[in-house]
Amino acid sequence: MKKTWISETPQLIGKTVELYGWAHTIRDHKKVVFIDLRDVTGIIQMVGVDDIGRKMAEASPESVLKVKGLIKERPSNMVNEKIATGTVEFEVEDVTILSSAEQLPFEINKEDLDVTLPILLDYRALTLRNPKVLQIFKLQEKIIDAFREACKSKDFTEFQAPILIPETAEGGAEVFEVKYFDHKAYLSQSPQFYKQIMVGVFERVFTVNKTLRAEPSVTTRHLTEATTLDVEFGFIDDWQEIMDMAEFVIKFILDEAKKDCASVFEMHGVELPVTSVKIPRIKLREGQEIIFKRTGRDNRSEPDLEPEDERELCRWAQEEHGVNMVFVTHYPVSKRPFYVMEDPEDLGFTLSFDLLGYGLEWLTGGQRVNNYDVLMKKAKEKNVDVEKSEIYLQAFRYGMPPEGGFSFGSERIVMRLLGLKNIREATLFPRDMERIDVRL
Amino acid sequence: MKKTWISETPQLIGKTVELYGWAHTIRDHKKVVFIDLRDVTGIIQMVGVDDIGRKMAEASPESVLKVKGLIKERPSNMVNEKIATGTVEFEVEDVTILSSAEQLPFEINKEDLDVTLPILLDYRALTLRNPKVLQIFKLQEKIIDAFREACKSKDFTEFQAPILIPETAEGGAEVFEVKYFDHKAYLSQSPQFYKQIMVGVFERVFTVNKTLRAEPSVTTRHLTEATTLDVEFGFIDDWQEIMDMAEFVIKFILDEAKKDCASVFEMHGVELPVTSVKIPRIKLREGQEIIFKRTGRDNRSEPDLEPEDERELCRWAQEEHGVNMVFVTHYPVSKRPFYVMEDPEDLGFTLSFDLLGYGLEWLTGGQRVNNYDVLMKKAKEKNVDVEKSEIYLQAFRYGMPPEGGFSFGSERIVMRLLGLKNIREATLFPRDMERIDVRL
Repeated sequence: MKKTWISETPQLIGKTVELYGWAHTIRDHKKVVFIDLRDVTGIIQMVGVDDIGRKMAEASPESVLKVKGLIKERPSNMVNEKIATGTVEFEVEDVTILSSAEQLPFEINKEDLDVTLPILLDYRALTLRNPKVLQIFKLQEKIIDAFREACKSKDFTEFQAPILIPETAEGGAEVFEVKYFDHKAYLSQSPQFYKQIMVGVFERVFTVNKTLRAEPSVTTRHLTEATTLDVEFGFIDDWQEIMDMAEFVIKFILDEAKKDCASVFEMHGVELPVTSVKIPRIKLREGQEIIFKRTGRDNRSEPDLEPEDERELCRWAQEEHGVNMVFVTHYPVSKRPFYVMEDPEDLGFTLSFDLLGYGLEWLTGGQRVNNYDVLMKKAKEKNVDVEKSEIYLQAFRYGMPPEGGFSFGSERIVMRLLGLKNIREATLFPRDMERIDVRL
Repeated sequence: MKKTWISETPQLIGKTVELYGWAHTIRDHKKVVFIDLRDVTGIIQMVGVDDIGRKMAEASPESVLKVKGLIKERPSNMVNEKIATGTVEFEVEDVTILSSAEQLPFEINKEDLDVTLPILLDYRALTLRNPKVLQIFKLQEKIIDAFREACKSKDFTEFQAPILIPETAEGGAEVFEVKYFDHKAYLSQSPQFYKQIMVGVFERVFTVNKTLRAEPSVTTRHLTEATTLDVEFGFIDDWQEIMDMAEFVIKFILDEAKKDCASVFEMHGVELPVTSVKIPRIKLREGQEIIFKRTGRDNRSEPDLEPEDERELCRWAQEEHGVNMVFVTHYPVSKRPFYVMEDPEDLGFTLSFDLLGYGLEWLTGGQRVNNYDVLMKKAKEKNVDVEKSEIYLQAFRYGMPPEGGFSFGSERIVMRLLGLKNIREATLFPRDMERIDVRL
């Protein structure tokens, strides 16, 4: 098994080692052959002369090599400052082609992969190997890891929410239907009901899930499958504590990303997010006033924000507060699900919030109705047949503390942090109504 | 928000604190009322006299309470050694019922929940609150966490595998079909193809997923939805390295479980697993010989093990090696998928293995075919239409190192470690052909 990573080579000058990787680029000068060998940690320049050079030249780009050789320090005038291993060179003593690659359909080793979105996805196994593309998913991994770490630092328990669900109150047109033996089942759009049930068990819970939504349009920010991060917790005294927790979790994630993925931000030419400033909190109606004052666009009677409104409020937050994020609270009862708590001091509006970040909705949350009778009444008012969700109702029938939580998709945050134009770029294997790996 | 956990109370003698939790049991002696208050960390005895006692007595079992009071040391003759907070008592000064529970359908606060499996699942929101039941899922959480930690310690990257898949080579009768706009999609039974693709990107990968299988029978060890842990890695020199990694990961998980969940094992009255002994590795044919010699049962011409064979081989491993686990290798080519490597030194048999643990198949793995032409040939021999899986094929067409991996379900391990009789007990919200939360 592979023992030496390419990133370790600058510390191994004078040592004979075995390296394994892909032939990133090949330059054949007949007597001397150079191959840039790539592994997941980096790239090193290998050089071979005469017979060894000829053997190296048999490799095609992306062929997999096992190479034995000597790590040598480069003369100071030959140092390549563009790569982390630029102080060393690998003098090849023996090379084995472990796997040959066919002729590539396009160049994949350029700094910026110059392909259209359909090509990027049609050749996903190949385009993911491009270092700038690959790093997008190192950032996604870090964000999800940091999410777990943030939750655990506050005594939350992780649980496994199901994907297959019965016909429930949360249904609707955008739920995928599954042929389930002689019955129908559905795919979960959200672990909402299950995380609330689990508050009755573990008090503070989080869960990472694939969520599925039959999104009937092709936009730059929606997919049919997303990796969603959910938090829910009980024994709150005030609903603002839910926003406090959301702010803590998001900032923890961003701080970890800044610490461990600074090179990813740099590679994508974007600035590191600001995490030192308290994120402003405004009511939807206040936000609409701000937009009206700043732009003259009057959406003050709308029950929700349009994409342009979200962008404008983030611009406002950046200019007025120095942070590209803003909590918007108090969406009207009509626009939120039956289980969201109405504000007793602002009737008609809910104790709910969205976190807008970098011009896009990142996160949504709020306090839930925890009284069984009120929950049943709210469901009836919204014509939701909640009686189908018996186990959910049990959680409230038998004692549920005041509680709330929030939810956000990992892809949207990655997309916005790196300034990607399309959520498909921030998804390993994006699914939409026109594509599941291949075009439908 | 809640600031003090019940488990912290023995360190807070003489302090006035607020506790939040559920009324686990209530004993009303008129002048004096006792409530055992339960939160996720433990149980404490609360006592209230006169008016405060009357107020406490208004709570029903499972009602949610907010209680202010004084933590007092118990006289030594009153210490309750059965509970962790047995040295203290909580003298109630004020109590608020945050949420009232209806009359319970059965007693849920007994040490052993005395209900049938259907009742256990019909009242899942309630039965999960029983401490012995709840702890099952603390162990599941620990196993999945330890899996991540083990993989990361070996430089593996976690990635997000999709749930929605196109019609692929891995299909078959036991795949769930999804109505996908004007098309059909399917639910992933395994991230196999995706983890292999990702070896071409990150070299060493792992992934945690819900896997879905239209299991057309109701057994004690199968469900339609499971939480599956997958590993795959490249640049192996020898296929035994895959078993080495599986052994490392499993033992790491068991060691973490022993360290952090010892009380769960104790609560369930089972012994801690042995992790200090090398797990024996035998070929399937050797295993069948062992079974024949030990029991006279002659399955030597069978291509696979029966459940009773799995139990017998674990008994053998326990008796002969002192460990209740055994790797069984070299399943015949006919019983393994097309992508599993045939042993060039033992034709007709594959470089594949199962890990049996505690009498049950826990884990399955092996080396994969990494040469594109061989892969295509093997697919053809098995009549698998692999050309539908274009992105999978790309990974091999453009350079894939020698690689392999393994996969296991979290529920089976939890089930076996705790000696549970049915996998449904080791699953928060089990799904089978007869049930999705409620009976179908």
